[in-house]
Amino acid sequence: MPKAHKSAAKKSRLPAGSLVHVGDLHDYQQRISLINYNEADVTYLSVTSIDDILPFINTDTITWVNIEGLHDIRLMEAIGQHFAIDSLILEDILNTHQRPKMDDRDDYLYVVLKGLSVAKTQLFSVHYEQISLLLLKNVLFTFKEKPDVLFSDIMSSFANEKSKVRRLGSDYLMYVLMDTIVDEYFTLQDTLDELMESIESDLLTAPTRETLFTIQRVKRELVFVRRSIAPVRELLMSLQRNESTLIDMNTLRYFGDIYDHVLRIIEAMESYRDLTTGMLDIYLSSISNKMNETMKFLTVYSSIFIPLTFVAGVYGMNFDFMPELHWQWAYPALWVIFISVTVSLLHYFRKKNWL
Amino acid sequence: MPKAHKSAAKKSRLPAGSLVHVGDLHDYQQRISLINYNEADVTYLSVTSIDDILPFINTDTITWVNIEGLHDIRLMEAIGQHFAIDSLILEDILNTHQRPKMDDRDDYLYVVLKGLSVAKTQLFSVHYEQISLLLLKNVLFTFKEKPDVLFSDIMSSFANEKSKVRRLGSDYLMYVLMDTIVDEYFTLQDTLDELMESIESDLLTAPTRETLFTIQRVKRELVFVRRSIAPVRELLMSLQRNESTLIDMNTLRYFGDIYDHVLRIIEAMESYRDLTTGMLDIYLSSISNKMNETMKFLTVYSSIFIPLTFVAGVYGMNFDFMPELHWQWAYPALWVIFISVTVSLLHYFRKKNWL
Amino acid sequence: MPKAHKSAAKKSRLPAGSLVHVGDLHDYQQRISLINYNEADVTYLSVTSIDDILPFINTDTITWVNIEGLHDIRLMEAIGQHFAIDSLILEDILNTHQRPKMDDRDDYLYVVLKGLSVAKTQLFSVHYEQISLLLLKNVLFTFKEKPDVLFSDIMSSFANEKSKVRRLGSDYLMYVLMDTIVDEYFTLQDTLDELMESIESDLLTAPTRETLFTIQRVKRELVFVRRSIAPVRELLMSLQRNESTLIDMNTLRYFGDIYDHVLRIIEAMESYRDLTTGMLDIYLSSISNKMNETMKFLTVYSSIFIPLTFVAGVYGMNFDFMPELHWQWAYPALWVIFISVTVSLLHYFRKKNWL
Amino acid sequence: MPKAHKSAAKKSRLPAGSLVHVGDLHDYQQRISLINYNEADVTYLSVTSIDDILPFINTDTITWVNIEGLHDIRLMEAIGQHFAIDSLILEDILNTHQRPKMDDRDDYLYVVLKGLSVAKTQLFSVHYEQISLLLLKNVLFTFKEKPDVLFSDIMSSFANEKSKVRRLGSDYLMYVLMDTIVDEYFTLQDTLDELMESIESDLLTAPTRETLFTIQRVKRELVFVRRSIAPVRELLMSLQRNESTLIDMNTLRYFGDIYDHVLRIIEAMESYRDLTTGMLDIYLSSISNKMNETMKFLTVYSSIFIPLTFVAGVYGMNFDFMPELHWQWAYPALWVIFISVTVSLLHYFRKKNWL
Amino acid sequence: MPKAHKSAAKKSRLPAGSLVHVGDLHDYQQRISLINYNEADVTYLSVTSIDDILPFINTDTITWVNIEGLHDIRLMEAIGQHFAIDSLILEDILNTHQRPKMDDRDDYLYVVLKGLSVAKTQLFSVHYEQISLLLLKNVLFTFKEKPDVLFSDIMSSFANEKSKVRRLGSDYLMYVLMDTIVDEYFTLQDTLDELMESIESDLLTAPTRETLFTIQRVKRELVFVRRSIAPVRELLMSLQRNESTLIDMNTLRYFGDIYDHVLRIIEAMESYRDLTTGMLDIYLSSISNKMNETMKFLTVYSSIFIPLTFVAGVYGMNFDFMPELHWQWAYPALWVIFISVTVSLLHYFRKKNWL
Repeated sequence: MPKAHKSAAKKSRLPAGSLVHVGDLHDYQQRISLINYNEADVTYLSVTSIDDILPFINTDTITWVNIEGLHDIRLMEAIGQHFAIDSLILEDILNTHQRPKMDDRDDYLYVVLKGLSVAKTQLFSVHYEQISLLLLKNVLFTFKEKPDVLFSDIMSSFANEKSKVRRLGSDYLMYVLMDTIVDEYFTLQDTLDELMESIESDLLTAPTRETLFTIQRVKRELVFVRRSIAPVRELLMSLQRNESTLIDMNTLRYFGDIYDHVLRIIEAMESYRDLTTGMLDIYLSSISNKMNETMKFLTVYSSIFIPLTFVAGVYGMNFDFMPELHWQWAYPALWVIFISVTVSLLHYFRKKNWL
Repeated sequence: MPKAHKSAAKKSRLPAGSLVHVGDLHDYQQRISLINYNEADVTYLSVTSIDDILPFINTDTITWVNIEGLHDIRLMEAIGQHFAIDSLILEDILNTHQRPKMDDRDDYLYVVLKGLSVAKTQLFSVHYEQISLLLLKNVLFTFKEKPDVLFSDIMSSFANEKSKVRRLGSDYLMYVLMDTIVDEYFTLQDTLDELMESIESDLLTAPTRETLFTIQRVKRELVFVRRSIAPVRELLMSLQRNESTLIDMNTLRYFGDIYDHVLRIIEAMESYRDLTTGMLDIYLSSISNKMNETMKFLTVYSSIFIPLTFVAGVYGMNFDFMPELHWQWAYPALWVIFISVTVSLLHYFRKKNWL
Repeated sequence: MPKAHKSAAKKSRLPAGSLVHVGDLHDYQQRISLINYNEADVTYLSVTSIDDILPFINTDTITWVNIEGLHDIRLMEAIGQHFAIDSLILEDILNTHQRPKMDDRDDYLYVVLKGLSVAKTQLFSVHYEQISLLLLKNVLFTFKEKPDVLFSDIMSSFANEKSKVRRLGSDYLMYVLMDTIVDEYFTLQDTLDELMESIESDLLTAPTRETLFTIQRVKRELVFVRRSIAPVRELLMSLQRNESTLIDMNTLRYFGDIYDHVLRIIEAMESYRDLTTGMLDIYLSSISNKMNETMKFLTVYSSIFIPLTFVAGVYGMNFDFMPELHWQWAYPALWVIFISVTVSLLHYFRKKNWL
Repeated sequence: MPKAHKSAAKKSRLPAGSLVHVGDLHDYQQRISLINYNEADVTYLSVTSIDDILPFINTDTITWVNIEGLHDIRLMEAIGQHFAIDSLILEDILNTHQRPKMDDRDDYLYVVLKGLSVAKTQLFSVHYEQISLLLLKNVLFTFKEKPDVLFSDIMSSFANEKSKVRRLGSDYLMYVLMDTIVDEYFTLQDTLDELMESIESDLLTAPTRETLFTIQRVKRELVFVRRSIAPVRELLMSLQRNESTLIDMNTLRYFGDIYDHVLRIIEAMESYRDLTTGMLDIYLSSISNKMNETMKFLTVYSSIFIPLTFVAGVYGMNFDFMPELHWQWAYPALWVIFISVTVSLLHYFRKKNWL
Repeated sequence: MPKAHKSAAKKSRLPAGSLVHVGDLHDYQQRISLINYNEADVTYLSVTSIDDILPFINTDTITWVNIEGLHDIRLMEAIGQHFAIDSLILEDILNTHQRPKMDDRDDYLYVVLKGLSVAKTQLFSVHYEQISLLLLKNVLFTFKEKPDVLFSDIMSSFANEKSKVRRLGSDYLMYVLMDTIVDEYFTLQDTLDELMESIESDLLTAPTRETLFTIQRVKRELVFVRRSIAPVRELLMSLQRNESTLIDMNTLRYFGDIYDHVLRIIEAMESYRDLTTGMLDIYLSSISNKMNETMKFLTVYSSIFIPLTFVAGVYGMNFDFMPELHWQWAYPALWVIFISVTVSLLHYFRKKNWL
């Protein structure tokens, strides 16, 4: 169970409308970085409060504020107040159990997505991070649950004066960030591909109970991955149909590109689901097969010795009148019988295809 | 089977249009409470008949009448008559087998929902309560099957002069109540999360027949929970598309927030459904595995002793001429043979991976 | 298989357009009853031919003709001719394999439904009856396959001068009849509820092959029940969207009420379907479990006696030199060994959880 | 696998647009019959080339040309040329792997369907025949894969001066033919009904491997039958929504009747599909049950004799000091023990419900 | 797993918009061929760079440039620059993990498809090749992953002056190429048909573990084939609804023909999917059946010898007083008993249907 669902009901008895962080508490230090840029200049800044941000706003440059860590509720309130953001939106940013969606409120555009990364542990498991994007005129806020390197390549690309992102608006920046998030899904897909192949080769050679648990684990994670990715499709469809003035017509086409990627991912996940079902069938049939083998072995083995033991028992009887007991060649003759019975039975079982 | 379905047909032979309470009879005392408020003032009142209510209606204050217990059919008739409520609506309020839905009748708006709560017994089971909301101009009626604490937090919040609910209309009050009902679903989700985790750990260690019954019980409850929650989605969509003058445009946005919550719950329930299916597979495969283990044990065990017993039987025979019987070292030699056969067989079974 | 499907192709080689009764032949006597009413008066009549009916038509009263039994093809032709009913409609009335549907032909409205009743035999089985309703201006024809008490309550309600049905038109009468038919489905639901509960308790205690057959029987009936009920949903949607002048706007709202009922029934049937699948899993796993128990028993039993028998065999051998045979305490000592082996093995199996 | 799919790719490397017969070659002689009729007159003719047909075209009579056998590609080309039929349509007529569909090309209307008939062999199998209908103004071409009696009743009905088909246009003739084709599906349904009932009774009494193969065969044929019938639904919907002048508004209503039939058939096929799944479950559980029975038998049997044999073994030992051996009543006493052990065990197994 | 999915994430950390070949690297030499034609003339050319192509563009002839192998990124960039192709499209051409789709950009039309071919190895496996078509005014570019004979028939057909492709525009050429690609799917269908039949006959006679793996392999490939073919349906629907001036109204009709083919293929693939599920059931039931057979054999065998061995053991006992031992005919009488017990048991098992 993704940990994030653990406290789904945490807020349920609070009055609607109060800001509170719902989700896992991460120990990470909150980190706020600001990039202010236009084609000519770029400023990197590490900020601590809204007062550091405001001077950059409403000029003819574009400002990207990346907030990593969601502890600071006062910051959220300050942003909410200054940029006139609806408190429902602020709540959504802080409650990390959101379903991916977009919300267009004339003056700003809110998009929430899930960043997926494969945990580097021995067992396959996926980490989820909620990433919110808040697009205003010439300003883009991004809210991440925890600091990591996901956006660092993009950040450094601003240093390059000729990079496209410097020349285009905050809407294009939003596209680049969403594209980065979605591209990360392909890494997940690659991990799954490798995992599936290793499971398949296990199944063909020597499936163990471990194999079953891995299959089950993959099935399980797929359930949650699908829940995180599937709504992104809708999200991008709304985004493209959307007539917000915040996104330029030319940039919209780029979002179409992400849409194609998401479609591919979703279909891949569907395929994995079908494949795991097939794998389970193989696994179950392999248990049955093994049981069948064991049964056959026991049957063949018993069938040979049972009659021989009976015969030995017969000549162990103490009747006074058992003429065979006194024949000179009876004992060696009996061994001949023992061996021929065994050979015939083996022959019979071979014909029955049990050997 | 939720008890509520027991008497689905109770009314089936009555003439259409007669008011009667269809559903479980609860022993609870009926309780009617009234809150009359505006930004300046608030009055709490415990009432017993319609006559206590009427004085508060049609003034410039907002009135919330919360009726807990559905025994009093005359009260319903009085409300129906005084506020000109269609008898079909009154029937729906009294028949607690309703599917969640809304009905917009120009002068009033009818919404019926299911309140879900997890029973505090050892076995997982869900309790259902039908909650009807009847929104009129400045008046909100709520009808609950039984008295409980679900709305008590909201009731006390009226005492706070600055609470948002005091400043806004009856439509906002309806939102707050529906939000409370839906938030309660998250408590159910949390219980399920815990239950699923405990089942999973059982499955990995020592699944018993009890585990199977718990899985089955969860599957079963999910069937009914889905039936209670899924229609809420439609309900909220109609509510948002609806052009009733009873709900302010600004309040509509809040309903969009409930909509998101319901979507999340529905998807979570779908996930649980998929997960239980996977659990069943694990359970069944674990039975097969155990059987396989038993089989292997029996086979290995028998395979070792069967030939030895045969040999012992052979030398128990009473033939006159069995030279081996008279060899001095025959008996110890036989023990050597016994032991080497056993060792070879054990070796063979280890190679076959049966040990 | 509902018998009614037995002769699906009976008519297939006849020229299109010839009237013939397709379906099971019932031995019932055909029965035609007529009620002519307005707010002031009501006339009950048992009629035998169209000539008895015509005098009541086209006056300012409302006429309901209830025809039970579909043998009399000439009557159908007479009705067809006199009221200008399309021969395709007449065919549909006579062919009792219709899918529930409605057909709006300006001058009249045709609705066909299935009446469902649970057979009062020991085995659960559902009886199907096709009921056609033909609504004309101030006239309603109903065609039932066989005479029964389904409509008798409604018939007697006409005697009551104050009953709503007396005051409203033929469209309201159609609603009342359809409501009666649909309410009967809830009786089916109740029977199913009870049956499911009894199956469940069987499954938890001692499932037998009978239990499996009952589950399968329920699954099977559900397939046919769904086929009879699901199209009623569409039917009612068309009816509500329909702009026929034959149905008053105020009456339409009542049909919305039936629609809600049908939705509830359909969802209940879906739930039963899911539940039966779960039951089958329980049943299958209980067979596996039993087999596992048997296996364990055999294994434990054999594992204890197999080595003991071997040892007994060893000391039954006739070698000249077996020193143990001559030790005085050998025999009692052997019994000590026998008993300790048994105890150790029992201990081992208990640890393995096989006992 | 229906044979017809065997050569799906036969044409794949040919240049698009070349006429060639794709499908099974039937040995049947090609047969072309023509009926020219109006209300007054009717002419039957057996023709061999297009020149025999042309004189009847474009008069005020209606002409039906029924071509059975698709060998004669030159005839197709002649028809194509004379009536200006698109080569894509001609290809579709000749390639008997078409999916049922309609194509409205202003001057003519093309409909292709599958005729289904149950093979009269011991094993259940369905024969497929592609039937194309080409409706022009006052002319109807029908193309069948092979000559049979499907249309013969209709042909003879022309002899009757009063038959409806004589009075109405070529569109009504098309309806009558399509109705005949679809009615034939009900014959299939009847065969399936009988087959299902016989399988069910087999399952309840003594399911064999044959039963399984029959179930599988039915499932398999249903896959292909569905593929042939399901698209007919769409076809008829397009036909009804279609605004071709070739079909009279009054005739359209008749097509609505076929639509209802097709819907019934499709739903019936869906039901069969569900039923076969249930049957498979019963079959599998019956194997498990049998295995369980066998296991129990072996276990009971072994459990009784294993201890007895051990005891017999004990008193077969040759120890010098075994006092029991010399007791006078030891042997009879042992038999008493043997019998009481057996009786107690049988009692125990009866209690365990294994007997 | 189709190899092509192996590097899905390869590009994920690159800045959006940089051209790079994503997919398997094939060792094939890149090959570019150009055909320039009109009704009068045709020129075949093997080119190496964009400079060889440009002279043929923008004249009144039609130019088809077929690029096989996607190594040469500079060529792509040159084409992109000269024909003003969006860099997103160029990326899509080079990234061979595209989902089939079309993109209409006023001046040009981009279509990407998957070419499927069955590998000629012993195991059933499908090869995928991405084929992009870029339609401009009078120019068609095709981009294939590797050089093969797929288009060679079409290329040679240009030599024929009367071939339709010479007379019609570049849109018709696009149709012919797409038709060729889709027709290749039927070859796959034929291979599958044969494979399915061979699996079925294996299942009915002697299913082995190999059979299971083949079924699983088919299921698996079907998952991927569906992913490659299903989106082609949408693609063709968009193409037909599309109002691009690049495709003539008359040519559109041809695309409708491909649409029908794709629909047939998709339905066939769905059928195969259903069939493989059925096959798996048969396989599993056949394992169960075999196990049952083995069990019965063991049970019958043991049941016969177990009592006989017991009796032999009894008369092997050494009691002083066992009168039977001294009867003269006891030993032969015992054999009579042995034989009659065996015969009775065999009779009993035959009656129980275990033999």
